[in-house]
Amino acid sequence: MPSPAPPNVLLTGFAPFGGETVNPSWQAVSAIEGELIAGHRVHTRCLPVAFGAALDDLRTAIRTLRPALVLCVGEAGGRAAMSLERVAINVDDARIPDNAGARPVDQPVVAHSPAAYFTDLPIKAMLAALQAARIPAEVSQTAGTFVCNHVFYGLMHALRRRAARGGFIHIPYSPEQAARHPGAPSLDVATVQAGLRLALQVALTTSTDARLSAGAEH
Amino acid sequence: MPSPAPPNVLLTGFAPFGGETVNPSWQAVSAIEGELIAGHRVHTRCLPVAFGAALDDLRTAIRTLRPALVLCVGEAGGRAAMSLERVAINVDDARIPDNAGARPVDQPVVAHSPAAYFTDLPIKAMLAALQAARIPAEVSQTAGTFVCNHVFYGLMHALRRRAARGGFIHIPYSPEQAARHPGAPSLDVATVQAGLRLALQVALTTSTDARLSAGAEH
Amino acid sequence: MPSPAPPNVLLTGFAPFGGETVNPSWQAVSAIEGELIAGHRVHTRCLPVAFGAALDDLRTAIRTLRPALVLCVGEAGGRAAMSLERVAINVDDARIPDNAGARPVDQPVVAHSPAAYFTDLPIKAMLAALQAARIPAEVSQTAGTFVCNHVFYGLMHALRRRAARGGFIHIPYSPEQAARHPGAPSLDVATVQAGLRLALQVALTTSTDARLSAGAEH
Amino acid sequence: MPSPAPPNVLLTGFAPFGGETVNPSWQAVSAIEGELIAGHRVHTRCLPVAFGAALDDLRTAIRTLRPALVLCVGEAGGRAAMSLERVAINVDDARIPDNAGARPVDQPVVAHSPAAYFTDLPIKAMLAALQAARIPAEVSQTAGTFVCNHVFYGLMHALRRRAARGGFIHIPYSPEQAARHPGAPSLDVATVQAGLRLALQVALTTSTDARLSAGAEH
Repeated sequence: MPSPAPPNVLLTGFAPFGGETVNPSWQAVSAIEGELIAGHRVHTRCLPVAFGAALDDLRTAIRTLRPALVLCVGEAGGRAAMSLERVAINVDDARIPDNAGARPVDQPVVAHSPAAYFTDLPIKAMLAALQAARIPAEVSQTAGTFVCNHVFYGLMHALRRRAARGGFIHIPYSPEQAARHPGAPSLDVATVQAGLRLALQVALTTSTDARLSAGAEH
Repeated sequence: MPSPAPPNVLLTGFAPFGGETVNPSWQAVSAIEGELIAGHRVHTRCLPVAFGAALDDLRTAIRTLRPALVLCVGEAGGRAAMSLERVAINVDDARIPDNAGARPVDQPVVAHSPAAYFTDLPIKAMLAALQAARIPAEVSQTAGTFVCNHVFYGLMHALRRRAARGGFIHIPYSPEQAARHPGAPSLDVATVQAGLRLALQVALTTSTDARLSAGAEH
Repeated sequence: MPSPAPPNVLLTGFAPFGGETVNPSWQAVSAIEGELIAGHRVHTRCLPVAFGAALDDLRTAIRTLRPALVLCVGEAGGRAAMSLERVAINVDDARIPDNAGARPVDQPVVAHSPAAYFTDLPIKAMLAALQAARIPAEVSQTAGTFVCNHVFYGLMHALRRRAARGGFIHIPYSPEQAARHPGAPSLDVATVQAGLRLALQVALTTSTDARLSAGAEH
Repeated sequence: MPSPAPPNVLLTGFAPFGGETVNPSWQAVSAIEGELIAGHRVHTRCLPVAFGAALDDLRTAIRTLRPALVLCVGEAGGRAAMSLERVAINVDDARIPDNAGARPVDQPVVAHSPAAYFTDLPIKAMLAALQAARIPAEVSQTAGTFVCNHVFYGLMHALRRRAARGGFIHIPYSPEQAARHPGAPSLDVATVQAGLRLALQVALTTSTDARLSAGAEH
């Protein structure tokens, strides 16, 4: 009798946007395709940087894979550390157009839905593990109001009645990108990959989050 | 027959915290006490920087004054502009103790309540007016997880069934404070006062917010 | 018999540049015209933001006024404090054109002259006085490579055989300017004026500089 | 007849300081020991973070190796890119003690010597090559006033009568270090190594520097 297939994890990155030719989120995520982490099989997807379409693809992947956990990863040019996002808010407010040319202003991600969802990943335990492994990491109190927050909100909304947990991690520019953004910090893709593997490992094996402060005065 | 008293506005600042001897939010707010703005009488209060107690005082003032609009103002050392806060989230996560020594970690502001509230002030119209008046201003997507966010969340929760609108503005250090924080930006209290008067004027006279992007990619 | 005229101080600001319509250095400096500080009469000049021409005007003013002390003031958009410049270097390297369209690259300010001059103003004593007065201030190790450094180098070169001392202070954007530069710090012109008066007072009354560290690791 | 030994290059890093347990400058430099770059043999040294002693070791290595080119590399925690230093100034002003406990204030590096030396490496050509290779890089107008600038100044002074060229590159924290400095940028050591090899290659094969602007307004 064959052993049962391991449960699935869905790990997503994004396509390039904002004039970039690569997106380090997909560079980091795609290398983890098929790996077995904490007894779960990692399936990766590259989402378009487009309001609506990104969520369509995400929902399709969730229906297909029935993952136990979903982690979405996006680029945050200007940040210096892997940012474990705490909360997704129900608003699209685009300073720049998405890759399909859309630029919504103050539209809800999902109409008639809550103002926000908190992640249900153990971000404090993940933060502690990343810091112990000497990988630059932080908890972030905002995922912005562009496609990343849109996907994060849509993810948590999609999971609200499923036995699955979800979260979002923002990552810095890669050094290759930062070379064209004077003064901007970067993090190499290999370090990000190690961080994502560790983050998944902790998320899949932690039932109660650590009680550690990672707040902000403002 | 005497003319009726004008409707009230409640404008709050905070006491000093974090080792400071002044709080520019109260310095700016207290000077506006009693003024008449857009036909409304401004009443000011200084809130303690303490989880719980700050909200107790705020709720008492709301019950007493029955204001048509409440604007809370807090110090955000490190920011360079007046920050119109978009959203309050239902979590207390204190990196430093409050003035009463409390340091909650990942506690809800109000148990069994929504994850977040959006302000219902017209922050885009307020932003446009401040920028037109050449006062440094921005929309902010996070009010943090300390006493400022606590008060902002508690405010919006308290107003949820009242015919009153509410919002929160973070302000930079004053120059006097920044003199002791090398590299930190500042904004003089007179400019902040002018900004607060203008913000209240716009908030009290705008029914539909402007449709302007003031989002963030992350 | 008339009392002798007091000795002169020359205080310069700059014209607007880089797309700005004002230059807070001249706004601050011009208000001090004619004042008597520590027994010296302050004479002000507005220098053009142009390589060469700025130095021509500066040298003319020095020849005319025979000042005991010269303090040049320039705008440093992006800095948060009054920056007491330590050293001027003998290079022009313009990232943007000056107001006359010139954009020199790696040219000496004065050919066949030293690589650098240190200011001979007591910048540590000036720093201490500004901080004691709660005015944001710092010592800076670079005045850049644009017209400000050009003027500062040319000033120290011009004074090298005169019984006069010289120095340079960079100031932040005014709040009015910062309103159009999201995220940029500012300092109000009144605070800058108070800082300049105090800086001159200390410079004119201090013979031996204070021994205070104000260095940088890099 | 044996072929003659190739000419030497001296490449230095530093020991850990400021509470760190590693110094990425030595991590990056030590891996290049013995390599042949543009026909030159690379010799590496680890300098102590101590005023005086660092220069003693540097001068000894120069006398021993008679290098054609010397490149010193130091850590600049807080910077985001490899910084090609333009100028060394003749002052020690230590905000923190060096590893021997010394904390000089406003002392010359070398008494009775010029205020500054410019590097004679082709930093603009090196910058262009690094950027073309997508390695984050910038020209810096100040190397600070601590041991790095001390070594850079002492190096240029030592080389002033030798047929050898010299320069200094500051590098960011490694990711491992940045993990303990919230918000600080980092650059992985492998990228720094690639950058140092490329910088040496360009420096050793470029006689006339490129004419590219890399200046700063302030």
